[in-house]
Amino acid sequence: MAEEFRLIDRYFKPLSVGLPSGDIGIGDDGAVLSVPAGHQLVVVTDTLVSGVHFPVDAQPSDIAWKALAVNLSDLAAMAAKPAFFSLALTLPHNDAAWLEAFAQGLQAISREYAIPLIGGDTTKGPLTITVTAHGWVEQGKALQRNGAQIGDVICVSGCLGDAGLGLKHALNQLNETEQARLTPGQWQSVLQVLHRPLPQLALGAALAGKANAGIDISDGLLADLGHILESSGAHAQAELGAELYLSELPLSQAMQAWFAEHVSWHLPLAAGDDYQLCLTLSEAAYAELKAQFPDNLYGIGRITSAAGIQFWDKPAARGGRQMTPLEVLGAAYCHANGYQHF
Amino acid sequence: MAEEFRLIDRYFKPLSVGLPSGDIGIGDDGAVLSVPAGHQLVVVTDTLVSGVHFPVDAQPSDIAWKALAVNLSDLAAMAAKPAFFSLALTLPHNDAAWLEAFAQGLQAISREYAIPLIGGDTTKGPLTITVTAHGWVEQGKALQRNGAQIGDVICVSGCLGDAGLGLKHALNQLNETEQARLTPGQWQSVLQVLHRPLPQLALGAALAGKANAGIDISDGLLADLGHILESSGAHAQAELGAELYLSELPLSQAMQAWFAEHVSWHLPLAAGDDYQLCLTLSEAAYAELKAQFPDNLYGIGRITSAAGIQFWDKPAARGGRQMTPLEVLGAAYCHANGYQHF
Repeated sequence: MAEEFRLIDRYFKPLSVGLPSGDIGIGDDGAVLSVPAGHQLVVVTDTLVSGVHFPVDAQPSDIAWKALAVNLSDLAAMAAKPAFFSLALTLPHNDAAWLEAFAQGLQAISREYAIPLIGGDTTKGPLTITVTAHGWVEQGKALQRNGAQIGDVICVSGCLGDAGLGLKHALNQLNETEQARLTPGQWQSVLQVLHRPLPQLALGAALAGKANAGIDISDGLLADLGHILESSGAHAQAELGAELYLSELPLSQAMQAWFAEHVSWHLPLAAGDDYQLCLTLSEAAYAELKAQFPDNLYGIGRITSAAGIQFWDKPAARGGRQMTPLEVLGAAYCHANGYQHF
Repeated sequence: MAEEFRLIDRYFKPLSVGLPSGDIGIGDDGAVLSVPAGHQLVVVTDTLVSGVHFPVDAQPSDIAWKALAVNLSDLAAMAAKPAFFSLALTLPHNDAAWLEAFAQGLQAISREYAIPLIGGDTTKGPLTITVTAHGWVEQGKALQRNGAQIGDVICVSGCLGDAGLGLKHALNQLNETEQARLTPGQWQSVLQVLHRPLPQLALGAALAGKANAGIDISDGLLADLGHILESSGAHAQAELGAELYLSELPLSQAMQAWFAEHVSWHLPLAAGDDYQLCLTLSEAAYAELKAQFPDNLYGIGRITSAAGIQFWDKPAARGGRQMTPLEVLGAAYCHANGYQHF
């Protein structure tokens, strides 16, 4: 226990800066935080487990960054402004070098987004990190999954698939020919997306009261858009579906190099872990927000009244052709995910 | 992931009841909570790790109770009214019987104190439970560790040592003679304290603006009172100490039976895990609160200007005699904890 107090003082107290005066951060049984008038509190929690959510040999500074980033991404998806976070860190042993690197990564992202650490718990056990992040949203303006409307523009906030490609690289799942498709710099950039995702906080804060539905893409675009369709359909008591225009998907230079000999759209559509946002916006909201965030908002489809997700090579108005899931995703994915009707 | 959604729906959604209308609990990227006017938010986090904070064969319903109870105890120690909690549950495998029992225990305490679950995360990995609990306290009235004043009455909220005695029993650390000191019913009662501690929420909520300092006793009275002395001394820039009157310590019937042949005061003073509160109160506040909580407040000592903790068999006004740490705690404890000056 005395050990615990030393750990907290040395590594984590420096991250407890920037709270308003009168607030209490690290050092008591709990933290005490001021509440902005006219707002609701938004609370999100995500756990990363060693060997499950990151490789056992991942850099501690990257683990720390990602542990907070995935939570901030959830706050962005709720249109909340992030305020502070708590950390529950379970460690197999008291390794000063590991802790110092972990604290550096945590400090990097905590400073980048000006989110102070307010407290937490350090315990002994298998490496597990739980962050609970808190934000504020104007009363009644939190962005939910359940408000998508027929005709909405489906948007994403940035390039998809890079984290999935980075993971294949990190896990040594690629043969020599596949490795050669990307330059070393391109591999570096997809690994950066995997290890240090950038939560879309600026866009997120602008969505309050403007977007109809939103979610962060942790499980892959198809799965997370599926959650929007399911939740919004249940809310509206109607079938909702989507059409996606593959020509409109934003792809990084690395992903374009990979696609030079591509076999399927699986990575951008289904790999997940990119922590971009998926949104549905009215035409008017899309025009307004696209002007404000030209590089962080890409219309890639439409909400429709036909159940399921339909794929088009490009929009019908531009002579697009509908494509089957088999063409888009490949047989293995379609079989595993129950796409029966081609 | 689909698996995760089923777990949440089946076992945890029923615990997400009792939120005000307009609030959002389980089912989106985050929870959205209303804020009472004129209050500050209090946030506490505690993790329980299997094999560290509970035996690997502990009952899942007890684990769940304790995981929330220790957090509610922290809220009580901050004089906060508990409002809601989130749960990060890491499980080695999807064991329906285990989960059902865990959810039952969580529901029992969640209902007992009317604290809804607002969300969380379920992940695969070694059994670890992190609860983040939230409460509200009137602006500026949170109870801290750092406000103890010379002359304050040191109080505890109930019997100490039972959880430590229960742990010895649960870990089979007692010989036959020691086992025979308590009746089966008395063993049952100390195991109940160990496995299902009762957070002192009613007393806690009454302390806002009245107690000078408070902490919950998780590490043992001496250690936690030590935190109050250290923190309050630093705040006042003065040496603070305490005298404790052993005659005034509240002891359960089970502990009295154990004490019939006692060797040291180690269990009530240092074993911890009882989750009672340790408070320091002015004379006036003590009189007022003792009238309100006659069975939940016991004056056991005084804050003094002499550094360290002094032990008395009873108060000097009643002819008390000062005792050495060696007499009170035994040689092994004194040696391990650096009591050099007898």
